[in-house]
Amino acid sequence: MAAGPGCFLPILEWGRTYDRATLTSDLVAAVIVTIMLIPQSLAYAMLAGLPPEVGLYASILPLIAYALFGTSRTLAVGPVAVVSLMTASAVGEVAAQGTVDYAAAAVALALLSGAMLVLMGFFRLGFLASFLSHPVISGFITASGLLIAASQLKHILGVQASGDTLSAIAVSLAGNIAETSLPTLAIGLTVLAFLQFARTRLRPLLVGAGLAGRPADLVTKAAPILAVAATILLAYSLDLGARGVALVGAIPQGMPAPSFPQVSVDTLAALAMPAFLISVIGFVESVSVAQTLAAKRRQRIVPDQELIGLGAANIAAGLSSGYPVTGGFARSVVNFDAGAETPAAGVFTAIGIALAALFLTPLLASLPQATLAATIIIAVLSLVDFRAVRDVLAYSKADFAAMAATILVTLLRGVEAGVAAGVGLSLALHLYRTSRPHMAVVGQVPGTEHFRNVERHHVATEPHLLSIRVDESLYFANSRYLEDRIAALVAGRPDIRHVILMCSAVNAIDASALDSLKEINRRLRDAGIAFHLSEVKGPVMDRLKRTDFLTELTGRVFLSQHEAVCALRGC
Amino acid sequence: MAAGPGCFLPILEWGRTYDRATLTSDLVAAVIVTIMLIPQSLAYAMLAGLPPEVGLYASILPLIAYALFGTSRTLAVGPVAVVSLMTASAVGEVAAQGTVDYAAAAVALALLSGAMLVLMGFFRLGFLASFLSHPVISGFITASGLLIAASQLKHILGVQASGDTLSAIAVSLAGNIAETSLPTLAIGLTVLAFLQFARTRLRPLLVGAGLAGRPADLVTKAAPILAVAATILLAYSLDLGARGVALVGAIPQGMPAPSFPQVSVDTLAALAMPAFLISVIGFVESVSVAQTLAAKRRQRIVPDQELIGLGAANIAAGLSSGYPVTGGFARSVVNFDAGAETPAAGVFTAIGIALAALFLTPLLASLPQATLAATIIIAVLSLVDFRAVRDVLAYSKADFAAMAATILVTLLRGVEAGVAAGVGLSLALHLYRTSRPHMAVVGQVPGTEHFRNVERHHVATEPHLLSIRVDESLYFANSRYLEDRIAALVAGRPDIRHVILMCSAVNAIDASALDSLKEINRRLRDAGIAFHLSEVKGPVMDRLKRTDFLTELTGRVFLSQHEAVCALRGC
Repeated sequence: MAAGPGCFLPILEWGRTYDRATLTSDLVAAVIVTIMLIPQSLAYAMLAGLPPEVGLYASILPLIAYALFGTSRTLAVGPVAVVSLMTASAVGEVAAQGTVDYAAAAVALALLSGAMLVLMGFFRLGFLASFLSHPVISGFITASGLLIAASQLKHILGVQASGDTLSAIAVSLAGNIAETSLPTLAIGLTVLAFLQFARTRLRPLLVGAGLAGRPADLVTKAAPILAVAATILLAYSLDLGARGVALVGAIPQGMPAPSFPQVSVDTLAALAMPAFLISVIGFVESVSVAQTLAAKRRQRIVPDQELIGLGAANIAAGLSSGYPVTGGFARSVVNFDAGAETPAAGVFTAIGIALAALFLTPLLASLPQATLAATIIIAVLSLVDFRAVRDVLAYSKADFAAMAATILVTLLRGVEAGVAAGVGLSLALHLYRTSRPHMAVVGQVPGTEHFRNVERHHVATEPHLLSIRVDESLYFANSRYLEDRIAALVAGRPDIRHVILMCSAVNAIDASALDSLKEINRRLRDAGIAFHLSEVKGPVMDRLKRTDFLTELTGRVFLSQHEAVCALRGC
Repeated sequence: MAAGPGCFLPILEWGRTYDRATLTSDLVAAVIVTIMLIPQSLAYAMLAGLPPEVGLYASILPLIAYALFGTSRTLAVGPVAVVSLMTASAVGEVAAQGTVDYAAAAVALALLSGAMLVLMGFFRLGFLASFLSHPVISGFITASGLLIAASQLKHILGVQASGDTLSAIAVSLAGNIAETSLPTLAIGLTVLAFLQFARTRLRPLLVGAGLAGRPADLVTKAAPILAVAATILLAYSLDLGARGVALVGAIPQGMPAPSFPQVSVDTLAALAMPAFLISVIGFVESVSVAQTLAAKRRQRIVPDQELIGLGAANIAAGLSSGYPVTGGFARSVVNFDAGAETPAAGVFTAIGIALAALFLTPLLASLPQATLAATIIIAVLSLVDFRAVRDVLAYSKADFAAMAATILVTLLRGVEAGVAAGVGLSLALHLYRTSRPHMAVVGQVPGTEHFRNVERHHVATEPHLLSIRVDESLYFANSRYLEDRIAALVAGRPDIRHVILMCSAVNAIDASALDSLKEINRRLRDAGIAFHLSEVKGPVMDRLKRTDFLTELTGRVFLSQHEAVCALRGC
């Protein structure tokens, strides 16, 4: 994909035609997204084990950086659930929650991830995301959703608990369940019920009551901020903080000065692998959302440039004391539906969040943590997709195995192990599948020039000719199988004098397969059998001509299988 | 590949027809291989950092175990150079050379590797060897040959040195070069010169002098044992041990009682990965030799049964205080050429080595270590194959990159890192290649039903139809590329109303690709474009029918591209 002019700074493209109508659309969308983003940012920061204001910091500069470098017109970046969980898991390995080192490590993680994304974009390494198959990603997100929901139960119950795996969280919760704070539980369950109602029932009710579709949507999307406002009022007026309800507490007003984190080389080394996983998973999710939205308006995403946009956003997050960010699904859809037309909407959203960080933070001191936990639980349960698991099981056992492994290992051993297990298994299963390509002994359909599988059709064969068709490109994973199969086919047939390999489905032959063909040729020669090829594609033949294989070959290369059989049998 | 009756104990097949003529052939081959194996076994044990007698122990029971369970009639198993190097590297990580723990860890490594091979055979996991492409194996063996030769220089010079990498060995040698023992160097260089002469010049000379081909071969193969005998005599008669020449020294006579090694769980865990690599690399090498020899007589190797044969051999090596073994190239060829007809030759060889262990060990005390080192150097330099490197470079840059990485990382970071780098890079490059399959916009060749690439042929297209052919199976590594490419192709063409994906080269569609097709369908639908498929193969279609994709599909599935264009344009 060639990058057009101005592609490394996409703002140059849309900026030239920016007018008042576009401005209005972008402003409206920005207001709506800002209202949605404030509680989300606070909640996801808490999920990442960071003070809530860090979520706001991560929702300002990163949006501006993405607006400058990203290619999606409507993607909304910022803190998201899965990346927040991965941050908590990675940073928890190198520092204790609540310490200065923990916050510094989160910043370092954002910078590392940003640098990796920019480098991947620069070297066009976006294909690395191909290592993650859809079932692995889908399984990972489902498992992450469950893990996140489980991790938030402690805030609903008002008890202490910790753990990176489902079992650890369960044990920890069970040990402290006696400490449950009833007022906290009451707030948590009420907010959960309200948000679940808003998500599933409110919109039909409002539409039924005569409200138009779009305002009804907006009211629905504003439910979390309503819950935040209501529980702040409640906690403040009833002094719930003194009755055992954990509140967010005083948070610093204003914005942090840009700074570089103080972390050791060892910490950086320990964060490298998590940063890579966060980069790749964030990129995959983000591009998928961006593609979906762009397609609706026949716009175009440049994946390698997206790497640079997301990388810039993460570097910006790091420089502003934030933590890793990526493109969020829900907020991007809201941004799109609310009419955003250009990345300027993201810049206006950033301004909105900055104003909130400057002026609203004193109000947040009385916000119950249970409210934020309820917001997270409702948001992430929509990520849990058991239907996808069922569909994959029905379609392909291999894909299901990779998905199931990802889910189980993520739940029981944590996020990194889960991704590693899924990627490893899907690669192994892919190699397994292509390592045993379909091969058929073929014969001639009488009266025609067609050749078909002898086991499925009535075809004519010659006793001293063996024609074999292989239905896959030849490469290292199947080259040995080819050797084994041809050896096995020849071993049982003492009359064979010629073997013809029909290459009509072979799109490529790598160096391993070339060695195997040479080896097959030598072994057949030692057994007194000539080895021929037929129907070799042009580009494959061009490559073979650069080697000595064609001079070593005991037989010939025929343009068609029919020609081969004619020449060797005599037509 | 179906396993025939008696396949799990192949001796039942060849044992039934065993007669006196076969016995004679096997006995002759056994004598010749025994003579070749004695110095090799001693030398490779030294290379593995073990006392020389361990090499003999590893050449007795393993041969009998392989004879019982292996499927090759002529493969000769025992200690080999590359596996000895890998053993030294793995065991050196957990214990110091010369200690009881070192020997115990080597035994544990053999048992672990044996257990893994048997399990891989039982679960038919031989395909795991497909992860190793030919360029990676070839590069690894070349680098190992260089490393081994470098590691033996200390014995030729008579100095102390250590190190698992070329740079470490060089630094270590350079620091001690002043200590060089001149008598040792004289013996080392003389034996090197003699063996090199025997390898390259002796046979033509003997044949020129009137000796027949086969006896000339035998004299040539006996050169190492001649060198051993001559230098023992020399060292004994001149008392070279007192003059600074390192000798093998007293070695225990007889054979060790079967025993289990005393190693900790931590040690076992540290040895697991090396044991796996040794298993896979040993298996690949061994099967490749076995296939080559079997093909000459139109016999058959069953790779999964070979795993069990090699596994049994390694367990036997472990039980008899040995170390990991595999099928050796040189000795198997000698066994074959000397006329071995059945695995009984291996049993007779084992008896020969056992007799040597019982009666010859006192003679070996005066054997200079430099003689063994020279034997190793001459043997491994034949493994170094720069021609293969050149050929791969000419054929494929991707394969060359994997090979070069394997060689460099093996030399500079050691054997495990080398294999890991090669496997990782070849997988990544394979994914990269298949992640961007060839795709072409096609049009109709006027007056025919054929469709060809619009960029290469004069073809007719319709303004509202876009026909795209993809030349690869669709799976997770290329499914996102497919999405991106179709999005990009559609983005520039506002007139398009129908997209037809021509699937004539698609042998499989995995769950990721199915998701991508659904996504493409949804995105095209949102843009007001219908999505059609054409020429979908039978098995692929059968799978698609098990999903809801065909009901979601906005367009139709056509049997042929021509039919599709006719229907959408009106013929």
